[in-house]
This record gives sequence, C-alpha cells and structure tokens, in this order.
Amino acid sequence: MESNIEVIAFDADDTLWSNEPFFKEIERKFEALLGSYGTPESISAELYKTEMQNLERYGYGAKGFTLSMIETAIRVSHAQVTTKSIEEILSLGKSLLDMPIKLLPGVEQTLQALRAYRLIVVTKGDLTDQERKLQRSGLEPCFAHIEILSEKTGDDYRALLDTLGVAPERFVMVGNSLKSDIQPVLSIGGSAIYVPFEVMWKHEEVEEFSHPRMRTIDSIADVPSALRSFEAKK
Amino acid sequence: MESNIEVIAFDADDTLWSNEPFFKEIERKFEALLGSYGTPESISAELYKTEMQNLERYGYGAKGFTLSMIETAIRVSHAQVTTKSIEEILSLGKSLLDMPIKLLPGVEQTLQALRAYRLIVVTKGDLTDQERKLQRSGLEPCFAHIEILSEKTGDDYRALLDTLGVAPERFVMVGNSLKSDIQPVLSIGGSAIYVPFEVMWKHEEVEEFSHPRMRTIDSIADVPSALRSFEAKK
Repeated sequence: MESNIEVIAFDADDTLWSNEPFFKEIERKFEALLGSYGTPESISAELYKTEMQNLERYGYGAKGFTLSMIETAIRVSHAQVTTKSIEEILSLGKSLLDMPIKLLPGVEQTLQALRAYRLIVVTKGDLTDQERKLQRSGLEPCFAHIEILSEKTGDDYRALLDTLGVAPERFVMVGNSLKSDIQPVLSIGGSAIYVPFEVMWKHEEVEEFSHPRMRTIDSIADVPSALRSFEAKK
Repeated sequence: MESNIEVIAFDADDTLWSNEPFFKEIERKFEALLGSYGTPESISAELYKTEMQNLERYGYGAKGFTLSMIETAIRVSHAQVTTKSIEEILSLGKSLLDMPIKLLPGVEQTLQALRAYRLIVVTKGDLTDQERKLQRSGLEPCFAHIEILSEKTGDDYRALLDTLGVAPERFVMVGNSLKSDIQPVLSIGGSAIYVPFEVMWKHEEVEEFSHPRMRTIDSIADVPSALRSFEAKK
C-alpha cells in the first residue's frame, strides 16, 4: 500500500544535530565568568528571566541569547562586571554561532532512505544562524525547502502548508519538541513523529501525551517504521 | 490589454516605511556616547568596519547591529568604556526593535489600488524584528505572503519564485535598493521598479544603471503607472 504522506518535515536543532548541550556548555562558562556575583543556579535563573523578558522582542536564537547574557551580567553585578567580561560574553556568543555541527546517529542514512518523499526543514531561531548551521551540516542537498520561522504555532504551520500547496493529511513533522513540533501540527490535522532528545530547553517543556496521529520513537532511524505504522492504522 | 504581471513584491524598510533615518539617529546617539574616544566620523567608520566583519556571522538586522555597537565601544575605548554605557547601548538596540513605523507617503492607497494582484513582501533582516514591524505597520492584511530572507541574491529570488510557483516574467519587485531589490530580480528574468529613498545604507550603494525591464519612479504612488508602461512596451 502506498503512503499518502507527501512531505516529511524535520526540526533541526536537537533533531538533526545536537544543539542544546552546546548552549548549556556556553551557559556554564557564562556562570563561571560571573562567579563572584552569585551561584551558578542563581545566575542561570537570572539569565532565563532575562531571556523570557526579551523573547517577544528578540525572538529565538543565539544573537538574542548573547544580548540577554550581557544584560544579565550587568544586572547581577550591579554594573560592576568588567568590560573584559563583556568582551568575553561577545566571544561566547560568536562561538555559539560557529558551533560545530554534530549530526545525531542515523540522520544521514534516514534522510537517504526517505529521499522519495519531499523532505523539508522547519526550524526556528536566527535566520542567518540556522542557514549557516544547515550549510555546515552538509545536509542541505537532502532538502527541497528550508523554512525558518519566528514561532511554530498551528497558524504558522498552516501558512507554510498553504505556501507549499500541501494538505495537512499529507504532511508529517519530525521533531524533539512536543510544544513546537508535535502539538501544533496535530492541531491542524497533520501527523507527527516525536523523537525526544537527551536535554530540553526549559521553555519548550510540556507534559507528555498521546494522540492517534502521533508516534514516539527513540531515534530518527525509526522514522521509516513509524511512517509504515501510520499506514497500517488506516 | 491585461497585464501579464501576477505577483508584485515590495521591499519593506525604506520602501514601505522609513527605516534608515532611525538607524542613523541611533548611530548619532552611539557616537555621542563614545565622544571621549573619537570624533563622530571615526566612531562611525569603526562601527561600519565591525558590522562588515560580523556580517557573515550575524546577518542583517538590529540584533547584530547592537552586538556590533557593543564590540566597537569596547575596541575604540580600549576596554575603558563604562558598563553604564554598554547598558545604554543595549537600550539603543531595544529602541531600534521598537522603532515607530512611519509609512511613506502613498503606501496605503497604492496597496489598495493594486489589490487585484498577489501582493507580497520580500525583505531581509532579523526574522522576529521584521515580522513585528509589519504587524506595527498595519499593512499585514494587504499581503498574501511575507518572505524574510538572509540575503537577496538572484538564487534567493529564484528559490522564492519556485516555492510560490510563479514564473519570473510574471513577477515584479518594488524597492529602494538597486543591489538587493533590482539587479538580482532583473538577472533572473523578472521586472523591477526602483523607488530611491532619501538615504541609503553605505553597504547597499551601487552605481545607477538602466534596463528595459526596470522603471525608476519618485514615489510608490507611481507603481500603477510604471506597471502600465511595462505593458505598453510589449
């Protein structure tokens, strides 16, 4: 039986390659830099507070994260932080933008195995940063379309499918965030394959749930069998 | 005779609304803040140098501009700039992101007059920032599609037209930058309407030229007559 799925979309960060661990590593360095102004936990909590306050204005991504690190450093130090430390934070931000791209196990083989489908990337973050990561990943030739969104709501997915001329029932999204990759796609009638990653950014955390048009798998290598299980259920 | 044009794309900054003058105003404030470390001209030249060094990594837009202002402040002051001044630069950056949107004369009437076409926006800059500016402009309902690109090369326009399913001969781009809005569109076989703005960011400056599929007009209000002149030439 032929699959009715036409387009398979992949989230990028922590779905195709490891991202959050590198962000966490940079955050550890940031906390160490500000060691005289608080415990790692308190600095981390202040940084998260700044990020949330700036989210509407800065959006997601490494540049806004860097600006939020600088703002946090000034606040927690009561403007006592040295200019040298701020210079160091700028460097941490640049190292985020130059992050080495480590593909997750099975990614290349899986994309190869699925090449009969129209494969696309749907990610959020900074435009230039996400494009550069895709270039560095070497995966760009696997994808017919790259979509970088400022948010991943149901409306955002619907607008994308309209632009691509694809019906939701012919669309499946693969990703590690229930909040951004799974829930909104299910809400507009699409299907979703959830591949949890080892760490999750606090902002993306939601309760686990189940849904007839959703599969949960351990590794991206299981995407083909998850696709077959959608067929079997029809 | 019916026009063969199907899609009219508009650049946003300095085409639909005034942008560069506000950036220049922020830059004047930045130069004043660093008055003890150089003349306005030398600070401006250093800032431009930093921007160009960071362009590949940061891309276009207000967040990268803010990070470049901070980096420049540290460099030109030999790390003597106060943390208070860096805090002030963060605020200048936020005021850029909250910039009041002043529509250019004739924009609303022109978009109304052209509503039989498929109108889209093609702009570059920060994703979240450009979307928020469009929301604040009140013009969003006029457009069938918003495309925010990291660059505007011929290849970028070609990929966009492919996604939208539009042939270049049925596409016209309206904008104030010969380098980003006009040349690349002509190069892939589209048409272009050039509306120079009062100021131009140095990075976008190129020599004026003429082309059979290009019109130069004084105001966006002249777009309908420019469209008719394309028809008359056929």
